[in-house]
Amino acid sequence: MDNTSLTHGGFTLPGEAGFEDLTLELAQRWGADVIRDSDGTQLSDRITTSGHEIYSTLCLIRADNEWAKAHPDKLQQCCMMSQPVIADGPTVTIDPLDGYFRQQFRVNADDDPKEWWQVFDRTTGEEVPVSDWAYDPARQTVTIRGARTWHTYTVNFFSYRIWEEISMYNHVTNDWGDREHLMPIEPMHPEVQEHILGHLETWLREHPHTRVVRLTSMFYNFWWFWGDPQKQRFIVNDWGSYEFTVSPPAIRSFEERYGYRPRSEDFVNAGLYNNSYKVPSRKYRDWMDFINAFVTGFGRRCVERIHAHGKQAFVFYNDHWIGLEPWGERFKDLGLDGIIDGIFSGFETRKVSGTPHVAVRELRLHPYLFPTGVNGAPSFLPGGNPTLECKTYWLDIRRALLREPVDRIGFGGYLHLVANHPDFIAYVEQLGHEFRLLRSLHQDDKPWAADVTVALLTAWGRQRAWGCCGHYNHGNFYNEVMESLSGLPLHVEFISFEDILAQGVPRHVSVVINAGGAGDAWSGGEYWAQAPIIEALSEYVHGGGGLIGVGEPSAFRHGTQYFQLSRLLGVDRELGLTRAFQRLAFAPPRAPHFILEDAPGELALGPAEVGGIYVLDRDTNVLAARSGSARVTTRTFGGGRTVYLSGYQHTPLNTRLLHRAIFFAAQAEPLFAAYSCSNVRTECAYYPRHRKLVVVNNGAEPEETRVTLAGGGSIALRIAPYGFTVVDV
Amino acid sequence: MDNTSLTHGGFTLPGEAGFEDLTLELAQRWGADVIRDSDGTQLSDRITTSGHEIYSTLCLIRADNEWAKAHPDKLQQCCMMSQPVIADGPTVTIDPLDGYFRQQFRVNADDDPKEWWQVFDRTTGEEVPVSDWAYDPARQTVTIRGARTWHTYTVNFFSYRIWEEISMYNHVTNDWGDREHLMPIEPMHPEVQEHILGHLETWLREHPHTRVVRLTSMFYNFWWFWGDPQKQRFIVNDWGSYEFTVSPPAIRSFEERYGYRPRSEDFVNAGLYNNSYKVPSRKYRDWMDFINAFVTGFGRRCVERIHAHGKQAFVFYNDHWIGLEPWGERFKDLGLDGIIDGIFSGFETRKVSGTPHVAVRELRLHPYLFPTGVNGAPSFLPGGNPTLECKTYWLDIRRALLREPVDRIGFGGYLHLVANHPDFIAYVEQLGHEFRLLRSLHQDDKPWAADVTVALLTAWGRQRAWGCCGHYNHGNFYNEVMESLSGLPLHVEFISFEDILAQGVPRHVSVVINAGGAGDAWSGGEYWAQAPIIEALSEYVHGGGGLIGVGEPSAFRHGTQYFQLSRLLGVDRELGLTRAFQRLAFAPPRAPHFILEDAPGELALGPAEVGGIYVLDRDTNVLAARSGSARVTTRTFGGGRTVYLSGYQHTPLNTRLLHRAIFFAAQAEPLFAAYSCSNVRTECAYYPRHRKLVVVNNGAEPEETRVTLAGGGSIALRIAPYGFTVVDV
Repeated sequence: MDNTSLTHGGFTLPGEAGFEDLTLELAQRWGADVIRDSDGTQLSDRITTSGHEIYSTLCLIRADNEWAKAHPDKLQQCCMMSQPVIADGPTVTIDPLDGYFRQQFRVNADDDPKEWWQVFDRTTGEEVPVSDWAYDPARQTVTIRGARTWHTYTVNFFSYRIWEEISMYNHVTNDWGDREHLMPIEPMHPEVQEHILGHLETWLREHPHTRVVRLTSMFYNFWWFWGDPQKQRFIVNDWGSYEFTVSPPAIRSFEERYGYRPRSEDFVNAGLYNNSYKVPSRKYRDWMDFINAFVTGFGRRCVERIHAHGKQAFVFYNDHWIGLEPWGERFKDLGLDGIIDGIFSGFETRKVSGTPHVAVRELRLHPYLFPTGVNGAPSFLPGGNPTLECKTYWLDIRRALLREPVDRIGFGGYLHLVANHPDFIAYVEQLGHEFRLLRSLHQDDKPWAADVTVALLTAWGRQRAWGCCGHYNHGNFYNEVMESLSGLPLHVEFISFEDILAQGVPRHVSVVINAGGAGDAWSGGEYWAQAPIIEALSEYVHGGGGLIGVGEPSAFRHGTQYFQLSRLLGVDRELGLTRAFQRLAFAPPRAPHFILEDAPGELALGPAEVGGIYVLDRDTNVLAARSGSARVTTRTFGGGRTVYLSGYQHTPLNTRLLHRAIFFAAQAEPLFAAYSCSNVRTECAYYPRHRKLVVVNNGAEPEETRVTLAGGGSIALRIAPYGFTVVDV
Repeated sequence: MDNTSLTHGGFTLPGEAGFEDLTLELAQRWGADVIRDSDGTQLSDRITTSGHEIYSTLCLIRADNEWAKAHPDKLQQCCMMSQPVIADGPTVTIDPLDGYFRQQFRVNADDDPKEWWQVFDRTTGEEVPVSDWAYDPARQTVTIRGARTWHTYTVNFFSYRIWEEISMYNHVTNDWGDREHLMPIEPMHPEVQEHILGHLETWLREHPHTRVVRLTSMFYNFWWFWGDPQKQRFIVNDWGSYEFTVSPPAIRSFEERYGYRPRSEDFVNAGLYNNSYKVPSRKYRDWMDFINAFVTGFGRRCVERIHAHGKQAFVFYNDHWIGLEPWGERFKDLGLDGIIDGIFSGFETRKVSGTPHVAVRELRLHPYLFPTGVNGAPSFLPGGNPTLECKTYWLDIRRALLREPVDRIGFGGYLHLVANHPDFIAYVEQLGHEFRLLRSLHQDDKPWAADVTVALLTAWGRQRAWGCCGHYNHGNFYNEVMESLSGLPLHVEFISFEDILAQGVPRHVSVVINAGGAGDAWSGGEYWAQAPIIEALSEYVHGGGGLIGVGEPSAFRHGTQYFQLSRLLGVDRELGLTRAFQRLAFAPPRAPHFILEDAPGELALGPAEVGGIYVLDRDTNVLAARSGSARVTTRTFGGGRTVYLSGYQHTPLNTRLLHRAIFFAAQAEPLFAAYSCSNVRTECAYYPRHRKLVVVNNGAEPEETRVTLAGGGSIALRIAPYGFTVVDV
């Protein structure tokens, strides 16, 4: 790949038949080397033969709706819990789909409800015996006999999914009217696999101009229940959950391999399902492993077909990405050539840039060229400001790209929407230059980073590196911390409790961060009751390691404390059960502290910050407090240091606070000065082989800053809003 | 009793030998009919023969320190948990008293530690086998062998209490220097009982002028662990907890009666102990019952001696009140003549005024005549303002006295401290007039109250009526709600979950209020997993009852919800595990609502208000919300109404909000207008037989208000700061 031009290449343009002039003009202006189609747009011959490389989107499981309609029992499914219903007498009738979007689901009674479904009295937690309920196929309702008055009942049931969710979203968002609803087929059935491969073969033959098949994505969409539009449009949306892989045929196949059959309740979990915030159970891990193996196996056969036609296979790291697990062990076996994700932020950028085993990593920028953005922004509608949107996202993305490069950027959607936004067209041209310049600096070089390695400890570990369960989970401490880390000059890793159970804390890790809320997968929940976890972390910190807890680190009601690492952190949280206990008043901070050196005045640790934080004894050093609750504390434990932060929100000031906290915990304060900026709204990266220093302004105002160099000298600069300066040093 | 004089009677003055002139002058000025002594003061002959009735304080368990010193094994005890210690190798040595106040405790190794103590690995939750640890009496330490490195260990052990806590507090507060430390003796021993009765007999003979023996109080103090003064002065203070009744002899006696022996861990509960916020276990209820029976039985013998000498026995509803349970079944058996409490607020006033089976109910007002107040106020020190303190408390007390009378008021402490506070002397004189006027209005009359009965539902029920675990538990929703209720013109009851399990919700209750935090005794914790509780409350509301939930009502992780009454309340709370679920946006309130009619602008529901409150569906009417979290909602369930408040703090505006919420939930809006004040900083009470309307100003500013009368007419008034107006109507 030629990575030296600043005006051409590394750019994917969404073309649009009917707007050929615009397509080719913008391809020229934005320096696009590739033109793609999108869901809802086609490329015309004039575009596909224009000399640009062609990416063609292909969604294998919704590609042939005629076949899907002819095989209604081969559709994808899911396991659902009905809305809870209160019994007002001994007979309760439940419409399982009540409250759900009936255009998305059709109850599956083909697989015997008595075998597959479960009915629960949620007031007692007991399952209702199969003999006490019946499904009426005519009315599509479940009737429970002998119900206990005022108890709440739910039905776990299976549904076919009769509208593929991504096209459903695009259809509804763009008001596609009576355009046919596409349906997702279930590749777990051998005949579906055969059909998909046959269809792929035909498709490949029919797309001679296509160089890259842009799979969007593999087979299973992330979990997305829609609601009855009259009641509630959306019910749940979890980018990381495998709920849409669940079906009786899949369960049967799982049972053959793993020797046990999960029940519906293993997927429903009293309405929690297996959402990404839940600490994954052993059974759910097995299920994910099973699906990952299947997606890898059948996916590889699809990729091989694509390669056989001399084309490349790129995968979209979204939509039907479930089972792909690009950061997992099996991903390399798929043989994919590239990965693409639609992203808004720094952490998502790192998720793509860090994906192993692919030759090409591409970011699809936002706003998506739809009237309304995925995040609800009125991007190209009256009142929208697509240029400002794009700039705002780019600031965060650029921070991450300073640290780790990707190969390409691009857009998707309806190109014609940009036609009357000349400022957007001009800004994207400039953004393309910035991107290409950054990419060139990474060529044969790595940006300077301190020899400090941070390991984020969660129940997911590397499996959810640089991601939680969607784009930006605002208020999720793990997500907020990740976003700040995505642009810092240090090394970041992700470890899980299972990793620690297997091999302890890796020796090269300088600082472990546990950031989350009580009981969630990011904090760790029930893992904290396992003694070996406590032993390993205590041993690690005592031996000189650093530990940073954010929010409710290690929180779990167990033993004599709530934060299970409270003896290391020196703080714990009052939950309301020990209010009779009188807590130590804080001593005022003795002197200005390294961690707070750039933090003037009151800290803003975000709306999710927790209160009621008390210190165990005087060995805890309270650096900041509010209303009697500690906010920033430090402590030593043996040879190591710990830091506690009662909340976290990604802001320039907090990024600096976190940066300093990490270096303090790592006992690496002397390493902090090199390539630091005096102004927290600016950041820099140094590329030693190129001898180039890049300084960025992360905000909308002009900023002055002074960059300290490695030798101790410094450079003063003024940088324009959203600006970018390259200095030879 | 003559209750008609406004200038004399119903007033107890603390006399002080050495200040006879002041004593007699203030007795005259304040209209005192009774003079008392206090801890630290004596009455001289001139005082005791001055023609006033004499109250004499007597604390039976610390009355004879020579005997206590001669019987060191007959001291009171308690069961304690050592501070947690982390093992840094296979041998851990724990000093059980480390961190505790060594002048308060002496380790009891007389009762074999191997039999009575327990050692726990708190990291695993497992008990360490008795064979793996040993107590060294010489070093007074426990050594654990074969400890697991980095695990946390604690020792449950028994201590003698070698400094009676109330005299310790008075000693330390007043700097009594080398005055001897009094020690509490354990009346569970027959020889201690014999000694106490003998001593009492002598004392009674030696106090011919005493008309009332003011027992302070019976035998067991509330739970009060002090800490190592170098580390932390106070560790825990719980006015309601029975931890100071625990000792091996008591446990042996319990075992004989109840057939099982509680272990140390039943009292320690991993450091939670049996504090008042913890939902009481069956074992703890048994223990309380056992102690209550003992205190009643032996207490009755003491009271009988007092009566035999022609004296009356009053008890102090504080200090050593544990086991007395004045609102319980056995209290009448004690034969006490009067009860006295030192109080600050309205709810405490109602606790005293509502105590059954005594002829005299007396309030000891604050500030206590000590340099420093119990609440830390510098009352009589430079910078203190005892008059303002007294006025402020009186406003809250007076609200309660409008509703229910007491017979007497008074003060305690060193009288000489008031000598150079002429404004205080003048204010107390005026306060005495107000008190006597209010008392006279209750004579042969009851203030008008709407036919609305509120039942506060907690795990304690009537046992902690008008009290939690100390004076004012600020931020405790139950306490805050109680304080507001203490002055409202309606009927208040207290019910427990056990009451509901036994007999459902009483039919005459108009509105049940559940106000508390997740898992605590006020909200109800694990009781909410019991189906009969849900059934009874659902049945009650469905049949027309009202329900108000405050904070985290019915919160318990169980089934498909967090608030177990969420289907009734229509709201639930996001705990962070279901963030993937998308919640219904609130519809704006349709029209001004009855509940909020007097609430202009933003509500202030207190710092403990909870967030993350979402509505289940559109049938929940959101009246107020902030940052996407519902704050005030209403809903119907069958024939009943529910109201949810996300927080509560006793303020004039919130008192009105609560008042309205109760009448709304009771479907009694038409009853609201009668005897309501237009200005929320004023309140009134109407005494129908006297045909007197009392209107009070609850604040420090002059206020104008209009009182609506029962017939619909109204009266406009202007009331002075802290003022009080009586109108004939």
